[in-house]
Amino acid sequence: MKSTMQDTPLSIGQLVRFGTSIHATATVTTWSETGPTTVTFADLGRRAAQLAHGLRELGVDGDQRVGTFMWNNAAHMEAYMAVPAMGAVLHTLNIRLFPEQLTYIVEHAEDHVIIADGSLLPLLVPLLSTMSTVRHLVVVGADPSSVDAPGSITVHGYDDLLTGRPETFDWPELNETDAAAMCYTSGTTGDPKGVVYSHRSIWLHSMQACMTDAMALSQRDSVLAIVPMFHAMSWGLPYAALMVGASLIMPDRFLQPAPLAEMLSTLRPTATAAVPTIWQALLVHLEEHPVDLSSLREVLVGGSACPPSLIRAFREKYGVPISQAWGMTETSPLGTSGRPDAGLSPEDEFDRRCTQGRFVAGVRARLVDDAGTVLPWDGEQVGELEVRGPWITGSYYRADGSDKFDDGWLRTGDVGTISPEGYLTLTDRSKDIIKSGGEWISSVELENHVVEHPAVLEAAVIGVPDPKWDERPLVAVVVKDGQSVTPEELREFLDGRVAHWQLPERWTFIDEVPKTSVGKYDKKRLRGSHAEGKLDVIQLS
Amino acid sequence: MKSTMQDTPLSIGQLVRFGTSIHATATVTTWSETGPTTVTFADLGRRAAQLAHGLRELGVDGDQRVGTFMWNNAAHMEAYMAVPAMGAVLHTLNIRLFPEQLTYIVEHAEDHVIIADGSLLPLLVPLLSTMSTVRHLVVVGADPSSVDAPGSITVHGYDDLLTGRPETFDWPELNETDAAAMCYTSGTTGDPKGVVYSHRSIWLHSMQACMTDAMALSQRDSVLAIVPMFHAMSWGLPYAALMVGASLIMPDRFLQPAPLAEMLSTLRPTATAAVPTIWQALLVHLEEHPVDLSSLREVLVGGSACPPSLIRAFREKYGVPISQAWGMTETSPLGTSGRPDAGLSPEDEFDRRCTQGRFVAGVRARLVDDAGTVLPWDGEQVGELEVRGPWITGSYYRADGSDKFDDGWLRTGDVGTISPEGYLTLTDRSKDIIKSGGEWISSVELENHVVEHPAVLEAAVIGVPDPKWDERPLVAVVVKDGQSVTPEELREFLDGRVAHWQLPERWTFIDEVPKTSVGKYDKKRLRGSHAEGKLDVIQLS
Repeated sequence: MKSTMQDTPLSIGQLVRFGTSIHATATVTTWSETGPTTVTFADLGRRAAQLAHGLRELGVDGDQRVGTFMWNNAAHMEAYMAVPAMGAVLHTLNIRLFPEQLTYIVEHAEDHVIIADGSLLPLLVPLLSTMSTVRHLVVVGADPSSVDAPGSITVHGYDDLLTGRPETFDWPELNETDAAAMCYTSGTTGDPKGVVYSHRSIWLHSMQACMTDAMALSQRDSVLAIVPMFHAMSWGLPYAALMVGASLIMPDRFLQPAPLAEMLSTLRPTATAAVPTIWQALLVHLEEHPVDLSSLREVLVGGSACPPSLIRAFREKYGVPISQAWGMTETSPLGTSGRPDAGLSPEDEFDRRCTQGRFVAGVRARLVDDAGTVLPWDGEQVGELEVRGPWITGSYYRADGSDKFDDGWLRTGDVGTISPEGYLTLTDRSKDIIKSGGEWISSVELENHVVEHPAVLEAAVIGVPDPKWDERPLVAVVVKDGQSVTPEELREFLDGRVAHWQLPERWTFIDEVPKTSVGKYDKKRLRGSHAEGKLDVIQLS
Repeated sequence: MKSTMQDTPLSIGQLVRFGTSIHATATVTTWSETGPTTVTFADLGRRAAQLAHGLRELGVDGDQRVGTFMWNNAAHMEAYMAVPAMGAVLHTLNIRLFPEQLTYIVEHAEDHVIIADGSLLPLLVPLLSTMSTVRHLVVVGADPSSVDAPGSITVHGYDDLLTGRPETFDWPELNETDAAAMCYTSGTTGDPKGVVYSHRSIWLHSMQACMTDAMALSQRDSVLAIVPMFHAMSWGLPYAALMVGASLIMPDRFLQPAPLAEMLSTLRPTATAAVPTIWQALLVHLEEHPVDLSSLREVLVGGSACPPSLIRAFREKYGVPISQAWGMTETSPLGTSGRPDAGLSPEDEFDRRCTQGRFVAGVRARLVDDAGTVLPWDGEQVGELEVRGPWITGSYYRADGSDKFDDGWLRTGDVGTISPEGYLTLTDRSKDIIKSGGEWISSVELENHVVEHPAVLEAAVIGVPDPKWDERPLVAVVVKDGQSVTPEELREFLDGRVAHWQLPERWTFIDEVPKTSVGKYDKKRLRGSHAEGKLDVIQLS
């Protein structure tokens, strides 16, 4: 029996048409050295149309790729709107990748045009000669004639490209499973792998983001989008904002604690989203330079598990709840959402907020052990998380990723438990878990306890070879300025917090935990430093 | 370029799996003469599995239709879950249709099984011999041996059908565009027409219902679902509740003001949804029997335009905001959502709440005049509303509805304006608007003004032939018990509220406005009474 429903596709074109008309007065505010600049969604719609006309003139047709090498700002939002809506594919380039990775992903995706912020040209221009597919560079806020590009690439000013073009564009009707945008994982092993989002997956993900139990975005929101637009599509915020008319505040390149604190206090967003390291740094800053955070209804944290101490600090010092979510580039990224259910005691609610939250309706999840057995949701048994769903990737673009999939499920590489109520608690990445004498030790759990010590700024735990136990934990500690602490004191501090057999013997003090391009602890580099004997390890008996 | 996203279908099976596991502890509470009965979503999941096994044994296979002839209650919810999830098609029968219409839709849909509430058997059983496609009748809360059915139909007890069957069911993976449920319009002209919802349309509609700017359903909600499950799928509440774990309160057959007031005061729902006539009657009841409505965060009103006086009364007397939404069986039904945007003055907010709200992201809208010209959104020009989108019907089931569609757009038959901000204000049904001397008079606007008079309970306005002006309004007034008012006083009351040339000359007093099966004013019957000379018309000079 056939349904009588209309066969109308979900498309970014419709999202742009909707957001820029019904929500014409919603705004995007971009921070700069001279203060904020605000434009309306209607303005963005006109400029997105002009951009699409301009890109057509540069030969962008069909599903050609248009790369962006940009911070979070209004021009980047225009590219988010214009490129997929015109039928081309937006490729958000992670500005923090190593040069050879950047060249690799531009060539692998066959980017035809790159739109770049003037402030980022020093990173990009030296690589242009290695990017053989690129024909046009469009620079935002810089003089194109000052750019020293190879002869095969024509350089355009962004405003020049737009000026005088029609302020409307007849966004084509597309197939909803067509590619709309792509993002490469910053995989720590091998080449980066491309995930290609469809119009459908972005639309469904945006609806999910606006649902009350997810990010709950609404027209009454003003969201400080700190998570970069080149990291998993800024967690879906730009398109979700278009869908409900939520205003956005874009920090551009001003991601240090001082300007973020100024944005929070002067622009008074209702919500904000970033990885834990941003909030850790901000908290330290706020201790010396307190500001009023009362405009925030919620702080969204993802990318890495959020230390409970951070959740507690935001709640107790600033009265702001933190909601964790779990996701990855491969999952668009929203997989879980951390808003606790109703009617809980403050302690239970706090415990729930310390989990990664519950799966959302479109995402199916299971835990699988080393032997491939599917484990029960009992909150105890630990396995690798596998997920399925319409905004979960099923392959990688022109790359073999067969080891990343298990009978149609994405193997996430994340290890943890799921409670009977569906709360996910991640204990580790599968490659970071420490296998000690047949038992598993969670590096993340140890880190969370160490970082609760008042003298500790950061702590990263890796497994190192041990003749007796196969592996034992090594704790790399960053001490706060002006403080000091000994390994003995820290071990004493951990005693009672973790099982006795988990208490680490090996400790080292470092200046900073190395981080990946997306701000996560780079344990591969830490393991490398240890293997090369570059860490001063203190071994307790 | 192909997207790498998984090709996983949106399906009611996944919704059932999700809602009954992650939200296992959410509840459905059904009202009865002896008080409320509560079951959890987990209970419902087990019983839905048993129901699916039972229906398989009755020969329900493939996309066969299973009709329900039921009030809002837990068993109806089980049918909502089991029937589409097993791949069959749920056909919700409107118990208030005329007998010949009921027979027509059962045979037209070829219902194989009907599940019926015991309390409704007196309406259904006399018709069974005319329903040639039906093989099985399943009765809820009644003794099957007491049912006098024709020999071609086997009667089963609902609990007997479920008892002892497995409490899990391997819900099949279906194509998301497969039929999931159907509902016939209660069209006032011609045979009822069938709308067939797909798994995809229901899923998308449920997400929309849970978005913050629509119904904003969440796991913290407990929704008194007064709008019947046989009217446009109870506005999507049952599936939306599964999607987020919102608890439901089901009034069964207790739809009178007194029991509804008791449910509101004792079960303390956070939200509730019904047509305006329910709230009008409840308000009158509450004046004599006040109860505490402070648990309500919102009252959802749809089905007919909500009189501003009703919105004001709820706000001023009970502190509860009313949100209107516009939709119809053909639109799943959510087309607009009436939550005003932020930062408005109380007056502006009130004005916005008096509109039908703004279109949601998935619904495209346009206004078309008699000549087929698309009109601008200026809040002034009046035209017929046409809509498009993935949960809007594109045809009727095995019926010619070509006059209801315009180049792929659904012609809604609703007439009104759209403001530049996308607020829809419906002024009338296209067949009810009064064409007076080349100008249009909105019957709804006149009704809203007349009903503001303190002596008036209800008012319905129809156009009647006039030798000079072609048509002029006739106002049919229902006076409140113990009150009295004259046509002259009412006309005086209207003076200044509407343009002078719109002031009605013709008035009649009636005991009750005739209503359709879904509780809307039945102006066709009123026009019929007038044509037959059955109304006592007072004509002012």
